[in-house]
Parts: sequence; structure tokens; C-alpha cells
Amino acid sequence: MEGTPAEAAVLSTVFAEQPIARTDIARRIGLSSAAVTRATQPLLDAGCLEYNEAHATDAAGDEATSRMGRPRRPVRIAVDYTGTFGVKLTHEEVVGVLVDFGGRIRGQEQRTLVGTDVDAAIETVVEIITTLDKQARKLGFTHPADHVGLSVSGDVDHATGRVRYSPFLDWRDVDLGARVSQATGKHVVVENDVKALATAEQWFGYARGLDDFALVTIGTGIGSALVVDGALIRGAHSVAGEIGHLPVGDPSVLCRCGGHGCVEAEASTAALLSRCREVAGEPELSLRDAVERARSGDAAIAAVFVRAGHLIGLAIASVANIIGPAQVIVSGEGLTTYDFIESAIRDSFAEQTFGAARQTQLHLQPLPLAEWARGAAAVAIEEFAFPSRLASGRRVFGGSHV
Amino acid sequence: MEGTPAEAAVLSTVFAEQPIARTDIARRIGLSSAAVTRATQPLLDAGCLEYNEAHATDAAGDEATSRMGRPRRPVRIAVDYTGTFGVKLTHEEVVGVLVDFGGRIRGQEQRTLVGTDVDAAIETVVEIITTLDKQARKLGFTHPADHVGLSVSGDVDHATGRVRYSPFLDWRDVDLGARVSQATGKHVVVENDVKALATAEQWFGYARGLDDFALVTIGTGIGSALVVDGALIRGAHSVAGEIGHLPVGDPSVLCRCGGHGCVEAEASTAALLSRCREVAGEPELSLRDAVERARSGDAAIAAVFVRAGHLIGLAIASVANIIGPAQVIVSGEGLTTYDFIESAIRDSFAEQTFGAARQTQLHLQPLPLAEWARGAAAVAIEEFAFPSRLASGRRVFGGSHV
Ligand SMILES: [Zn+2]
Ligand SMILES: [Zn+2]
Repeated sequence: MEGTPAEAAVLSTVFAEQPIARTDIARRIGLSSAAVTRATQPLLDAGCLEYNEAHATDAAGDEATSRMGRPRRPVRIAVDYTGTFGVKLTHEEVVGVLVDFGGRIRGQEQRTLVGTDVDAAIETVVEIITTLDKQARKLGFTHPADHVGLSVSGDVDHATGRVRYSPFLDWRDVDLGARVSQATGKHVVVENDVKALATAEQWFGYARGLDDFALVTIGTGIGSALVVDGALIRGAHSVAGEIGHLPVGDPSVLCRCGGHGCVEAEASTAALLSRCREVAGEPELSLRDAVERARSGDAAIAAVFVRAGHLIGLAIASVANIIGPAQVIVSGEGLTTYDFIESAIRDSFAEQTFGAARQTQLHLQPLPLAEWARGAAAVAIEEFAFPSRLASGRRVFGGSHV
Repeated sequence: MEGTPAEAAVLSTVFAEQPIARTDIARRIGLSSAAVTRATQPLLDAGCLEYNEAHATDAAGDEATSRMGRPRRPVRIAVDYTGTFGVKLTHEEVVGVLVDFGGRIRGQEQRTLVGTDVDAAIETVVEIITTLDKQARKLGFTHPADHVGLSVSGDVDHATGRVRYSPFLDWRDVDLGARVSQATGKHVVVENDVKALATAEQWFGYARGLDDFALVTIGTGIGSALVVDGALIRGAHSVAGEIGHLPVGDPSVLCRCGGHGCVEAEASTAALLSRCREVAGEPELSLRDAVERARSGDAAIAAVFVRAGHLIGLAIASVANIIGPAQVIVSGEGLTTYDFIESAIRDSFAEQTFGAARQTQLHLQPLPLAEWARGAAAVAIEEFAFPSRLASGRRVFGGSHV
């Protein structure tokens, strides 16, 4: 796809609101019906959009009455246009998915990772892509599936496909994009995992069609991805969304970042567990047992979790007061493990948001690893389907038509 | 000006980097030289751009060598294209300026305001505009000066020109834009004062040409205006930049907003003074005297100011960690009155910023009221010169060509 700005606007509107008539697309994006029809034609010709046949029959009688002769036949995404691979790496496992052009998961592979060895991890990624590629061929997409998105936690240079630093994988300056591209022959794009998950939610998930939202993840780390005016905030110095280091906690607690009172220093899973062990006087207490005790009424242990929920709520309220998102999605393995902190999060959020920011929708939603992998695929789709949206964005590696 | 997106991009590049050759504009905005030449011509024809004569002579020899025959003659803003009025209202005074199309202040009027009576304030605003309008006629702009920007603190509905709530003026739901337009016959646009000041810095001031920056103001209130990707963040619920209510302070202190530990609750001028009075045991101590004592070595009073600087530094670090601006400008009457808190602000900022966000430039800069008024004028200029930038932006009142 060449992707003029008008084509990108049409395509993203169809993604968000399909099936949709061109007259409605025109209203939505503020272009003339003629301009929308002009921009839609190459997308129909390329086969990534198609007519919504059921609706076409319904609306047939309307065609004649439509103003200026613009066709009212609704269009939708051609899900079989192509397949795309998305892989999420953690220090414990690798999850890969094959999604169709509508974002639906059509295949899934999962492998356990032993250790954080770079070569072994890359081998596992390649193995997963190779397996999923066979499934893609069987499904018979109109165009071969040749784009891969990879996501890892930490500092990722999306422009070069390098992982600068991933604390949990213990990786520094790994040329991930180029190496996976070399081994698979696919176009590969690499993104931070939280940003990738936000992209999935924006295109296919809970934030579909929203221009302003935040995704907050809690667990081993506490982070966020922020979308303002439809685009991810990246920060002039490649730092943005670092809500784990907002100093809303106890100012006497030193954080690994050098700051004091950081949310992560009290509310990350590791910090939480260490406090639970202190409180219980049991240096070997497991997270599972701590959660169990909090659930079954151990007041001291429960208070540690409530305190963490309180700080997370204050951090989310800070985001709401600063950028004013329409919705905040809260997820991450922390939420899955100790979902009972939800009311603490909600209460502190409600107390600390300023004025109308209190109306921000808080959506607490555990998301499986496959959804994170779908995020990596969404980044790859955005990359090849919306090149004009990403003037200064991520770079794609390998392949010939880039 | 009709203002196609290409025209707006050319005009804003010239504002930021004049004088500039069209080939350089093309490089900067990523359009072809041909497209830039096409977009520049109507701006030259309309008289808002002109050739930079001095440079034209220098560059004359280059013209023949320029690739593809594109003219290299640099262009610049035609400062005499038109004049624009900007007025800033506080609960104590009204300051108005007349600026030329290059943003230079060509006339200035100031009146004291007694009380917060709406009718009296509007009368004063109209009086100032009438006086400045006479000066504009004498200066003989190419086009009559017929746009006014007004700025007030508080919650302003830029879409309707209404002041929803201004705590310091004690105004609720005042139809300011329509009333001033009615009385003066000018196009009037109304904006929040901090957002307007940020607009002045973006077009003419310290943040000229920056796409990502924050303006923080300290004093009676503590607020900010945030520019991301060239546009002010407005928030889905019209709340954004509320750094005064980030909970980085003492969690036992209740703020008027209902939250706890808000920066404003300890570091606004009123909160500061009340703490100084407590510490000194003098309920009548004036701000001027408190500042004097802090300067002359009263350790207890000085500590109150340092604490405020510390919290302000943490709030600015929070903004840097969340949106990652290239630069933060700190201003406001607080900075003018107690500039010695600068090192406390800088230290806390440096300690609490995450990773590369530490590189954010902190620019502490007292700005006179006339600069705030220039901000209101900048909003009006943006309104009529860049209509295409502001698809869902502020509305202009009155006049016929809107
Ligand atoms: Zn930290
Ligand atoms: Zn508050």
C-alpha cells in the first residue's frame, strides 16, 4: 500500500467502525464524499477492503437516492487480505500468534524459555514463526503473510529494531529485528511490549476508535502507553509513560532509579512481596501464599496490597490530570494475580482526579499473553498498512518492497 | 487565508525559522519543492509572506544553480501584514498589547481593575482595545487589525468563548467572547491564560519551533500547558496539565480539590505564606517580608520556600516522565517573587526524572504581563492564519468572513 494520508484515514476509520458507508466515512474524517471515494478505490482494488455484501443487499434501494450519486454500499476490512505474525517475549516464555487482516487470532504457539540467552530466545522466536507460517499457508490468505511484529519489555529503539536494554530479559543492545529478519526472510518490526499492547487495543480491542486513552500495566514493572490525538507519545528523549516513577509514595523509600517515593518501589510485584514477607516475618513467603492470606482476611498482608492499589490509583489519577484520556485500561499480570486491589485503585483514582477528569472511564481488564502477542502483530500491521501515519516512526527490516 | 494544510505548514515553518529558502522549507516539512512553491505563492500574493530582500541580493548568484529551477530566494513574515490585539485579564489588572504579524509588540496599554465586576472588566477591555486600535491605524498595517485574543485564568470554553469558571476573577459562565465582539466589532477568541502564554512561546518565544514542550506557571495557582506533536493537549474532559494537583506532597494535607498531598496545597503562594506565618508565629506576616527573611538567612522561613521548590520540581519531573517534553519553561509571578527556589526546583527535578528524561532542558524565565497578553494575541493569530491546524479548535466570534 502506498498509503496517502487520505487512504490511511479511510482505512483506519473502517478498522474502527466497519461495516461503514463511504458517506459516513466522509462525515467522520471531514473529507468530501468525492475525496473518500477516490481514496477508497485503490484500497478496494488492492483487496484490503471489500463490500459488505449483506449490507449491500439491504442498502440497494438506497443507492439511487444517495446525494451526488456517491455509493452508499458499506465497505469492510477484507480479513483474508493477508496474515501477520506477532510475538511477545518474556524472560519465561515466548508467545506467538497469527492474525488475519481484521485482527482475529487464527493461530497460536507458545514455548517456555529457559534462561535469558539471546541466541536461544531468537531460535525459539524463529521456530514459532516458522510453525505459524505453515498454518498461514494452509489458511490461504490472498497475499502471503510476510510481516512480523516482536515485542519485549524495556527500552526498544523502534527506529533500528534494536533492544537497547531489557531489565527482565537482562539484554543490552541486542539487534533483534535484523537477526529475526535474517533468519525468517520476513519484514520485522520491534516495539516495547506495553506500546504494542496499546496498539492492539487501539485497532482491535477495548480502545477501538478512541483518540485519547492510556494503557497501564501492573506487575513486575508498572508502566503505561499513552495515546494522544491518535498517536503514541514517545517523548523527546524516548522516555514517556513512566508512571512507575511518579513520586506519589513514601518519600523515604529509595527507588532503583535514584528517585524517592516511586510507585514501583512500593507497588511492583517484587516490592509488594518483600513487604508482605516483612509484615509476616516470613522471609520465604511466596506471592501465591501472600495473595491467599490477603484474600482470606489477614489484615496486615491485605493492607500491603491495598497500599499498592492506592499508589497505583494515584499514579493513574496523575496521568488523567496531566493528559486527560477518555479511558484508562489497566491490565498486566499483577491485575490477574491480585485483582482484589481494584477497589483501592478506583477509590484513590476518584479522590485524586481533578474536576471533570473524574469522568475518565477506568477499565480494569486482565489480558492474556496472546493479546500482548496480538499487540506485536498490530504494530506490524500499522507499519505496512499505514506508512503515512508513521513518518518518523518505526522502521521495518528485510524484505524487498520496503 | 484559506489555509490548506500545506499552506499552514509553510507559514508555520517560516514563523519558526525565517528567513528561509523554499528548498529548506521543503526539507523541513517533507513536501516536494514544487508543492512548497505552490503553497507559498498564495501566501506571497496575500501579502503575509515577502521576499527577504537582503538575502535575495546575497543569494542572487545561487538562483541559476538551484536544482530543478526552484527559486532559492528566502522568504520571511511580512510583519506589516496586519496587527492583532491581545488582552490578559487578572483580578487586579488588564494588560493589552498590539502585535504585528511577526509577533512584535507595537503598542501596550494597562489598567488597574477594582473588584471583579464583569461589566466593569469588559468596559476596561473594550477601552484598551479602542485605544490600541487608534495606534494600529496610525501604524498603517496593510490589512486592518480586526482580531482580538483574550486570556483569563481558569476554565475557559474555547469553542464558545465563554468563561465557565475563573476562581480568581470569581466569574461563572461569563459570555466574554460574544460581549467583547459586540462592543468592538472585532473577531474575538478566548483562551485559558496559561495555554495562551504557551502559544506565544511556541510561535514567537522560548519554545519557537519546538513540537514538544511544557510551560509551567507558579504563583497563586500552579498549572501547565503541554504541547505534544505541535498541538496543545486539551484532554478528553477538558482537563489537562493540572500539575498543581499531582499528589507528590504530604498525604495528610487536604487540598481544596478534595485530593490529598497536592502540590498547590503546599506550594501555591497562599499556601506558602500561610506556612511562613505559622513558622514565624506572626499571623500578619506579608509575603514581601517572608521573602525578605528567607533571603536574609531565616532558616525556618527559607525551609518553607525550599520545600515548595522541591514539590514543584517533583511535579515537573512527573510531567517529564509522562510526556517527555524537549524543554520545560517555568514562569509565573511566583518565580518573579521568590526566584531563589530555582535550585530546589532543579535538584528535585534532576533526582526524580527517569533515565534520559533527565536531559530535558529546564528554562526558568520570569515573563512580564505583556508577554501573557502577547500570548492572547498569538492565539488570535493562530486562529486566523492557521484555520486548518484547528479543525476542532477554538471558535472566533463576530465579523463577517468567518
Ligand atoms: Zn523510580
Ligand atoms: Zn488538589
